[in-house]
Amino acid sequence: MSDAVSRISLGACLEQVRSTCPLVHNITNYVTVNDVANVLLACGGSPIMSDEPDDVFDITSICGGLNINIGTLNSRSIEAMKVAGKRAKELGHVVLLDPVGAGASALRTKTARMIVDEIHPDVIRGNISEIKSLVAGSGTTKGVDADAADTVTEENLDAMVQFVKDFASKTNAVIAITGAIDLVADAEVCYVIRNGRPEMSKITGTGCQLSGMATAYGWPRRSA
Amino acid sequence: MSDAVSRISLGACLEQVRSTCPLVHNITNYVTVNDVANVLLACGGSPIMSDEPDDVFDITSICGGLNINIGTLNSRSIEAMKVAGKRAKELGHVVLLDPVGAGASALRTKTARMIVDEIHPDVIRGNISEIKSLVAGSGTTKGVDADAADTVTEENLDAMVQFVKDFASKTNAVIAITGAIDLVADAEVCYVIRNGRPEMSKITGTGCQLSGMATAYGWPRRSA
Amino acid sequence: MSDAVSRISLGACLEQVRSTCPLVHNITNYVTVNDVANVLLACGGSPIMSDEPDDVFDITSICGGLNINIGTLNSRSIEAMKVAGKRAKELGHVVLLDPVGAGASALRTKTARMIVDEIHPDVIRGNISEIKSLVAGSGTTKGVDADAADTVTEENLDAMVQFVKDFASKTNAVIAITGAIDLVADAEVCYVIRNGRPEMSKITGTGCQLSGMATAYGWPRRSA
Repeated sequence: MSDAVSRISLGACLEQVRSTCPLVHNITNYVTVNDVANVLLACGGSPIMSDEPDDVFDITSICGGLNINIGTLNSRSIEAMKVAGKRAKELGHVVLLDPVGAGASALRTKTARMIVDEIHPDVIRGNISEIKSLVAGSGTTKGVDADAADTVTEENLDAMVQFVKDFASKTNAVIAITGAIDLVADAEVCYVIRNGRPEMSKITGTGCQLSGMATAYGWPRRSA
Repeated sequence: MSDAVSRISLGACLEQVRSTCPLVHNITNYVTVNDVANVLLACGGSPIMSDEPDDVFDITSICGGLNINIGTLNSRSIEAMKVAGKRAKELGHVVLLDPVGAGASALRTKTARMIVDEIHPDVIRGNISEIKSLVAGSGTTKGVDADAADTVTEENLDAMVQFVKDFASKTNAVIAITGAIDLVADAEVCYVIRNGRPEMSKITGTGCQLSGMATAYGWPRRSA
Repeated sequence: MSDAVSRISLGACLEQVRSTCPLVHNITNYVTVNDVANVLLACGGSPIMSDEPDDVFDITSICGGLNINIGTLNSRSIEAMKVAGKRAKELGHVVLLDPVGAGASALRTKTARMIVDEIHPDVIRGNISEIKSLVAGSGTTKGVDADAADTVTEENLDAMVQFVKDFASKTNAVIAITGAIDLVADAEVCYVIRNGRPEMSKITGTGCQLSGMATAYGWPRRSA
């Protein structure tokens, strides 16, 4: 996995998406879904949305990646996440989990953990509170935004880097924690990215869009 | 309630939202939900959307207000409205009802009345046809827009002011009827606002956005 | 039907929509629904969205047209499509089918064919792969976009024109296949429109918007 992370360069990722035009299956929330579709198209991918259990097996089978976002989960879409997740893994597709609001409700925390434990996503992308709630149930997620008490800062950076690498090791996934400081890690390497802008928290959906794009970028890696 | 209405000033409301950053739980339609989320962020609040009965108890518990909008209601979301509405009232949160399309179908009228009768929302915001259908079933809602026959005009203004104050008294709620002329009233005071622009009916979601914002503005009032 | 097609002029259509302001019932996907609502408003119509079986009978009864789009279909909305479709036809309303992703999953293909066979839509609008999958199950739909192998070109134009006229004859519907070259046909006349722009495939929802507009334009035809 370390190799996978270290080989990532944005230019190469974009070029790869543009040349392969991956079809990405999104089981995602209805709040930001239009922006997710448009960002996938803008970066050279192709989106399809489906959250009906009777539909997702076929749909995910023709795709290259699966983006699972629990932002407006319900009993039907949770079942679809399971069916699609298992099928996508069988086929070697990249599966990404965006655990929106994990920690904010028992259902969200339980569902996100179920996906981690049963589907084994290749990438987990969330804010620090959501990721913490996946690890220990100790997160203090404030709705769909990270709690200030959880923020990654220069002061707690070493501890946070260790935390994210440990979680990556435990889940065998690439973990991306986004915020003012982003941490992107596998078990051995953690990138610290200081590009956060406060404006990004003043519009909805930047995280969801990144999850969609990351699923597209990750697509051809498996078949390489 | 009269005091509550009379104390409202837009500047103070905005300042209050910015300083308290209330988390608003929205059970709302998937047509305008993205704009509702963005308007809540833009005015200093924080949105979370959840319409699954098994999720809403927890979600609304961490919020400060609940915005119930029946624009694309279904059997699952109606159940969620009940669960969340009861919980929000138990906790003293502001609950707003936006009865989109009440009068246009039996299910919408019945659901909106059920929420009025069982949840006792603090604010009800709709167009004149929707509000009329809540009172007497006599509204002639044309889809999600008010019927021309129901319009508030300078000619029928006195009667309309009495109508809205009576409904506010009966429901013990602040009633906001929006259109070319807006009426915002409790049992004793009715504000008449002549700021309507015909352009506002040429895009979707202005009413839904206002309902989201009004839920945010109303949030700290209860704990004051 | 030929007369209906031959009489279409964009200016007259727009004028008709503006003067009659038709209410259009949309059972549509949550990806592009906001743009569909706004395009209907922009062209002079009025949108309402409802996908709950217990709601759609009443809602479609007060409308002039029904736009059925299967882009994010589920078991509940499929039932709503049946109920609304039958009611709309009883009332002589225009019914349009947008078979998003037909060919990409068994459920989508089966649902789109069920609507064709049981509801008899007046208009079917899709990309070439979707329409092919309705005819023979032979389409090679790539997600929600047409497969390159199916593209309408100058080379296969005569065969494609015959194909679309045959399908129009079989279904007694106006068939609109959109792409780089659009084909709009009934059993006897096929218009070939060479206005496609590659940019249109780089944003989501242009097809869904056209389907909404076409339902509005078709509305007063039946009562004329």
